Amino acid sequence: MTKTRTETDSFGPLEVPADKYWGAQTQRSILNFPIGWEKQPVAIVRALGVIKRACAEANQARDKLAGIGDAMIEAAQEVIDGKLDDNFPLVVWQTGSGTQSNMNANEVIANRAIEILGGEIGSKDPVHPNDHCNMGQSSNDTFPTAMHIATAMTARDVTLPGLRKLHEALEKKVAEFEGIIKIGRTHTMDATPLTLAQEFGGYAHQVKKSIERVETALGDIYELAQGGTAVGTGLNTPRGWGEEVAANMARITGLPFVTAPNKFEALAAHDAMVAMSGALKATAAALFKIANDIRLLGSGPRCGLGELMLPENEPGSSIMPGKVNPTQCEALTQVCAHVFGNDAAVGFAGSQGHFELNVYKPMMAYNVLQSMQLIGDACVAFSDNCVSGIEANEARIEKIMNESLMLVTALAPTIGYDNATTVAKTAHKNGTTLKQEAIALGFVDEETFDRVVRPEQMIGPK
Amino acid sequence: MTKTRTETDSFGPLEVPADKYWGAQTQRSILNFPIGWEKQPVAIVRALGVIKRACAEANQARDKLAGIGDAMIEAAQEVIDGKLDDNFPLVVWQTGSGTQSNMNANEVIANRAIEILGGEIGSKDPVHPNDHCNMGQSSNDTFPTAMHIATAMTARDVTLPGLRKLHEALEKKVAEFEGIIKIGRTHTMDATPLTLAQEFGGYAHQVKKSIERVETALGDIYELAQGGTAVGTGLNTPRGWGEEVAANMARITGLPFVTAPNKFEALAAHDAMVAMSGALKATAAALFKIANDIRLLGSGPRCGLGELMLPENEPGSSIMPGKVNPTQCEALTQVCAHVFGNDAAVGFAGSQGHFELNVYKPMMAYNVLQSMQLIGDACVAFSDNCVSGIEANEARIEKIMNESLMLVTALAPTIGYDNATTVAKTAHKNGTTLKQEAIALGFVDEETFDRVVRPEQMIGPK
Amino acid sequence: MTKTRTETDSFGPLEVPADKYWGAQTQRSILNFPIGWEKQPVAIVRALGVIKRACAEANQARDKLAGIGDAMIEAAQEVIDGKLDDNFPLVVWQTGSGTQSNMNANEVIANRAIEILGGEIGSKDPVHPNDHCNMGQSSNDTFPTAMHIATAMTARDVTLPGLRKLHEALEKKVAEFEGIIKIGRTHTMDATPLTLAQEFGGYAHQVKKSIERVETALGDIYELAQGGTAVGTGLNTPRGWGEEVAANMARITGLPFVTAPNKFEALAAHDAMVAMSGALKATAAALFKIANDIRLLGSGPRCGLGELMLPENEPGSSIMPGKVNPTQCEALTQVCAHVFGNDAAVGFAGSQGHFELNVYKPMMAYNVLQSMQLIGDACVAFSDNCVSGIEANEARIEKIMNESLMLVTALAPTIGYDNATTVAKTAHKNGTTLKQEAIALGFVDEETFDRVVRPEQMIGPK
Amino acid sequence: MTKTRTETDSFGPLEVPADKYWGAQTQRSILNFPIGWEKQPVAIVRALGVIKRACAEANQARDKLAGIGDAMIEAAQEVIDGKLDDNFPLVVWQTGSGTQSNMNANEVIANRAIEILGGEIGSKDPVHPNDHCNMGQSSNDTFPTAMHIATAMTARDVTLPGLRKLHEALEKKVAEFEGIIKIGRTHTMDATPLTLAQEFGGYAHQVKKSIERVETALGDIYELAQGGTAVGTGLNTPRGWGEEVAANMARITGLPFVTAPNKFEALAAHDAMVAMSGALKATAAALFKIANDIRLLGSGPRCGLGELMLPENEPGSSIMPGKVNPTQCEALTQVCAHVFGNDAAVGFAGSQGHFELNVYKPMMAYNVLQSMQLIGDACVAFSDNCVSGIEANEARIEKIMNESLMLVTALAPTIGYDNATTVAKTAHKNGTTLKQEAIALGFVDEETFDRVVRPEQMIGPK
Repeated sequence: MTKTRTETDSFGPLEVPADKYWGAQTQRSILNFPIGWEKQPVAIVRALGVIKRACAEANQARDKLAGIGDAMIEAAQEVIDGKLDDNFPLVVWQTGSGTQSNMNANEVIANRAIEILGGEIGSKDPVHPNDHCNMGQSSNDTFPTAMHIATAMTARDVTLPGLRKLHEALEKKVAEFEGIIKIGRTHTMDATPLTLAQEFGGYAHQVKKSIERVETALGDIYELAQGGTAVGTGLNTPRGWGEEVAANMARITGLPFVTAPNKFEALAAHDAMVAMSGALKATAAALFKIANDIRLLGSGPRCGLGELMLPENEPGSSIMPGKVNPTQCEALTQVCAHVFGNDAAVGFAGSQGHFELNVYKPMMAYNVLQSMQLIGDACVAFSDNCVSGIEANEARIEKIMNESLMLVTALAPTIGYDNATTVAKTAHKNGTTLKQEAIALGFVDEETFDRVVRPEQMIGPK
Repeated sequence: MTKTRTETDSFGPLEVPADKYWGAQTQRSILNFPIGWEKQPVAIVRALGVIKRACAEANQARDKLAGIGDAMIEAAQEVIDGKLDDNFPLVVWQTGSGTQSNMNANEVIANRAIEILGGEIGSKDPVHPNDHCNMGQSSNDTFPTAMHIATAMTARDVTLPGLRKLHEALEKKVAEFEGIIKIGRTHTMDATPLTLAQEFGGYAHQVKKSIERVETALGDIYELAQGGTAVGTGLNTPRGWGEEVAANMARITGLPFVTAPNKFEALAAHDAMVAMSGALKATAAALFKIANDIRLLGSGPRCGLGELMLPENEPGSSIMPGKVNPTQCEALTQVCAHVFGNDAAVGFAGSQGHFELNVYKPMMAYNVLQSMQLIGDACVAFSDNCVSGIEANEARIEKIMNESLMLVTALAPTIGYDNATTVAKTAHKNGTTLKQEAIALGFVDEETFDRVVRPEQMIGPK
Repeated sequence: MTKTRTETDSFGPLEVPADKYWGAQTQRSILNFPIGWEKQPVAIVRALGVIKRACAEANQARDKLAGIGDAMIEAAQEVIDGKLDDNFPLVVWQTGSGTQSNMNANEVIANRAIEILGGEIGSKDPVHPNDHCNMGQSSNDTFPTAMHIATAMTARDVTLPGLRKLHEALEKKVAEFEGIIKIGRTHTMDATPLTLAQEFGGYAHQVKKSIERVETALGDIYELAQGGTAVGTGLNTPRGWGEEVAANMARITGLPFVTAPNKFEALAAHDAMVAMSGALKATAAALFKIANDIRLLGSGPRCGLGELMLPENEPGSSIMPGKVNPTQCEALTQVCAHVFGNDAAVGFAGSQGHFELNVYKPMMAYNVLQSMQLIGDACVAFSDNCVSGIEANEARIEKIMNESLMLVTALAPTIGYDNATTVAKTAHKNGTTLKQEAIALGFVDEETFDRVVRPEQMIGPK
Repeated sequence: MTKTRTETDSFGPLEVPADKYWGAQTQRSILNFPIGWEKQPVAIVRALGVIKRACAEANQARDKLAGIGDAMIEAAQEVIDGKLDDNFPLVVWQTGSGTQSNMNANEVIANRAIEILGGEIGSKDPVHPNDHCNMGQSSNDTFPTAMHIATAMTARDVTLPGLRKLHEALEKKVAEFEGIIKIGRTHTMDATPLTLAQEFGGYAHQVKKSIERVETALGDIYELAQGGTAVGTGLNTPRGWGEEVAANMARITGLPFVTAPNKFEALAAHDAMVAMSGALKATAAALFKIANDIRLLGSGPRCGLGELMLPENEPGSSIMPGKVNPTQCEALTQVCAHVFGNDAAVGFAGSQGHFELNVYKPMMAYNVLQSMQLIGDACVAFSDNCVSGIEANEARIEKIMNESLMLVTALAPTIGYDNATTVAKTAHKNGTTLKQEAIALGFVDEETFDRVVRPEQMIGPK
């Protein structure tokens, strides 16, 4: 049996665990929403700490927290620092405004501040979770602000570093694979040659653009709803409040937050989150293509394309001895597929605001933050455990490239498309070489063929 | 300048093209909804004809259409027969109840019946589009009935025949490919062998199950909303009406339609359409896998997996002479990807009913019908122009299968997983055969190896 | 510093926590896949226990586990019973075959059985994780079997009970709301009347059909891949193995599992999971509509529709005192939106199998199981904390129903659609009643009006 | 019977309609792909005209089209001008590179140029569809270039004008609704007041940001693949070709096209299209919210929220006389739901490139262009036929706002959150006013209440 203490809210008293700081509204949410296993992401909890500190500072600067402001700020800082993470037990599937998580933060900070001040936890005295911790705030502006802060911090700390690491790993391969001429493949069929560096250069460019898309989407994320309070009007805030607390949050986090130009939009819609999710989806499409290519190019070892040798990280099969699989590609492509799903959920939820409030906030935040975390983490694992260790199987690359019939394309400007077609088709039918057939068909002499059909001259404009 | 005549509705008079049967409400929709290029699908138009005939028959049987019933039935039959298709000009993006398309049918049938009876088109006399053609009906029950009829007819006429054709084409290949032992691939990597017949048998089974899923989903589609009228109560219908008109529609179409057990659900929700779309999505997932495998197995001709030879149907490249591509696989996988999108749209729309009506009806019908048409058509093209002509490249299949290291799996029960791993890894490192290394490592003698490691004995339980 | 012991696999030795049963392959996965926060669902772990027990029993029955079978079965049973949950540390984002989680189960059961037998943990003696725990199995058939078992158990234990509870709660309201006549709404606009019981009857029917759809989708889930081993051929299994272990699993779980008729399909595709996800998506569409209606019907208390009074469960606002919100509707609609996203991810992943294996298994299982858990849990919370406590605001319902202009529909069969339109439009323009205008316009006398326009006679066919 | 002529390609001769310019490859595509009813969008056809003209100009400038260049340019201009639209019969569901549509353009322009030059249509003399019309090009760079050009032109001509028109219509309402104070609604429940202008200002801001998101996404669309030819290397192009033809295309269209910095990415991936689709999806989420709000605020006329009066455009019901519905909202929300589906399809397809080519090009283009057309068109119809005519029902707005209990929020800073809660709950229970209860409970005197609780002072910070 856990020891408890009594906390109260406007619905009456409730027993809460004695060793936790949360109060009646948090406990009520635990009882009313026994749904699923998905807790509010830690990034949201930390962001709530940022908000509560920023607002307490602003209220203190206006002389509204005499005797309690310092303790409130200290308690909020503990939330930011992750010291109180286990005081945030609520799941994602609660009220759609995130009110209960906002109250969770208010209750925890109030009780912790009361404790610091030597008061009685649960007494709401001298720190009241609503009147003081929520002063000048509503869940309706606080939670969307937390969504944006958590998104921006996760982008900075997880998603973008992961993507940048992958970009660097790919660029390193570009440098390493310079000069390795290989068969190109279009429609999965043999095509004209390119270098392996060019192929990886395409991948690197995809990641580079993905980084830019996420960075661009952050622009709207830096705009914060705080100051809109209940419906966007800013009721119960002093003039200048929105600007002031946004500046505080920018200082606390080191991120360029500003107050949102239109608070009605900022509460009732989350288009900025939908757009960020769209950028993450485009990123997932890019990463999927790269990982899928790499596993196919590394397929084999004896019956596949076999152009790449991927690092061997672990036994691949519980039944087939010696099998090694492109597991990092699999983890990453699974992540990408999952991100596509998250994006569908976020877009749907984003369309479902009613009047002054969108009540899909926790679910939207959960999906965007999960996508960001997974992309960032998977890029790191994929870079470290796959890309960095990829080696080219140069012997095989050269062998099959030289057998390709599509080198005939170099002949087309000389002998015309239709004749070149005849050469390729005849060689295909007879199992012969292009050179044999081109000469046999009388379209070119050997010297011309050798001069024109040179893979190393087919990898760029002339 | 088109000649026009004047038609009227409760909003006043309006000029409509003189050579068309539609009336004021249709024309008003043309003017108010100049959106996109997607017309109401023909299947919906034909289904409206079925409904109007079935209801006219029922009303006539109740002596309510004296002197006009026969003409109305004749006109409705012309809609069913497609003779009046160009009198249905409305787009999908109209009122979400499909009222305007229902009125389009009412107006066309009224005017055509008036014409048959020698009256003046546009006079609503002796046949009124609402009072007679819509008697006992509302758009709110008529349009969802049309959705279900159109879906069931398209399933019968397009989707299921296409899937069945593909199933047969695949089963024929299963018979043809019996005994061709090939390398298996898991994680895209070499694995233990199977027969090409087994591989195609997996595809055939996927299609068989897809057919069953579509057939199962049709169960709820056979339940018709007709009889619910405005809000599901059946206001302004006589008792037994729903059962009677459903029976008429079953007779007219030859499909097992019945009246929906709950009309409130049938108007306000389209879960049956969402479920059908889910079955189509599962079908698309299956078809995608099959088509994608086939193009990868047919990749080459010289630098790919090269196990299959796909029919060559057209020049594949405008620049690379002689190139042939798996274009049917591409058409089919594009269709599948599109069906995934349609399913997302349908699920979303299905959730958005309000109170007594879901007002995403035309859009849901459009998406489901498009998915059904595309799957059916693409299966036919894919069967005819790809599957039926696939040939096995037996020489290559046998060559690479025999080189595979995963035949070592057959040794594992004899020498243990760990020793077998050593054999495979050593052969991989040295570029040697399993047999060489298994013997060199002292795990088996030659006789045992030859007895145990036999691909033809690795394709089933022992 | 955690105490460790040394475990080995074919890649070499590795330190693992001394107080855990897992071995080198599990530990290697921890190191190689530091991605996200999503652990393999507990339902998968338990299902792996079922499989390992069923296979051990079958192997023991064939005298292949002399001296170790009982201990293996005991260890597997502990996995089933949840006693070893914290020995399954792996995340979803690992190899796409789930090999590492299968090996996790093999390693835990091997070491626990060794312990039971008094051997040295980590010695693989006398119980080897591959040779004994994985005997007759491959991850490639084991993990999809686990997916199906986990899905079927979660459906039985969570999803269906939740849906059935909601169905009962709604049916109770249907009984309770009999005779309360209210305005119908189509296009969100006033329409003809129905009873509140009819409205809730539509909801109840939606849930009833949702239950049937999930039950139907379970049909294919009961077919198990076990026996296909590496590529579907059943290599290294004795004849009859698939049937035998499926029968064991059916006995252990009490669920009607059978062996899959085509093992190639069962490994390479997960259409059954895609179809189950489609059924869950259709369910989510239904639940969304219901929850959304209920919150709109309960909107107010003074400025909304105000027809329903929802239970007040907690304070709704951190800034607006006394505010109470439809939070259970919000939790449920968030869940539904999330399920839509999961379905998109599952469909995508289902299409991405290559050759003999789909390598999106853990991610597909995670999404389907999450959808099932969330739907089940949210239905329970929604039933208990919302539906059961809903009360009709009868006074308001009656008041606004009587003011509605759409009662005019009852007049249409008597005076014709066009005249009825004039009545409604005039009353709307003048702010008067239908009766006043119908008489003033001379279409009916008072007696006729009173006889015809009676809401209680508009709620069904006549 | 249509008259035909014989055309040939490398697969042999084929009869084509004598009155059309297309050749054998186009005809072959018609025969091989009888799939669906979706033709290549006109925007793609026109864009192919732009490309063919731009390349012909560049080739002519390099003296490679002596005697034929002018005629080719003239023919290409006719394609641009839409004079040859009915010579482009191919459907979307063809080869995934769009090769057949590229060849369609080549064949039409070649034959039309031959005709201009007095030659024999079908002779390929003096203008050859490959050697001349496709000179320096491949379908693999041409079709993605056409995708981008068509997207940019549709954005400029349809999507952005539509969004801007809606933005202006909403801003006009903002000006018109200044000073109308109304109840706010959060969680669909009564909340604190705001002005109707503020509410519409949120909508306007959403549209403004949507415009910016589409414009931002156009940045990457302006980068053209042309010059990459078959696999991205630019084989068979002269140096500087990419830059030169992009400049020509920019001149022809008046749009700021440049050559793509990485051609490998530009052929093998379509992340820019995925990102554009993401911007359209975010736009759809915004438009959905706006249209949904407007229909709910306009619900009634007597039993709904009734705050807005929407324009009455057409009869709303075939059974309920006088009914008028928010049909423009319905068309727009159906469009939005469809755009969500398109986005899912585009993201999926975007991830599916293999090696040097993504072969989902026609399907991706079709979906993006459809989304753009539908959004643009629906915004125009919604602006013209709905938003511009919206009127506020000021009497009702004021009445219900004054009854709201949430005005109590203004009291909270004075009497504390807990006391204010008591006031609201008591008034709710007793059906009384806040003022009555606040005084009766002794929390404030009348003077204070009247001074503090003033809606007109609750619509902004103080």
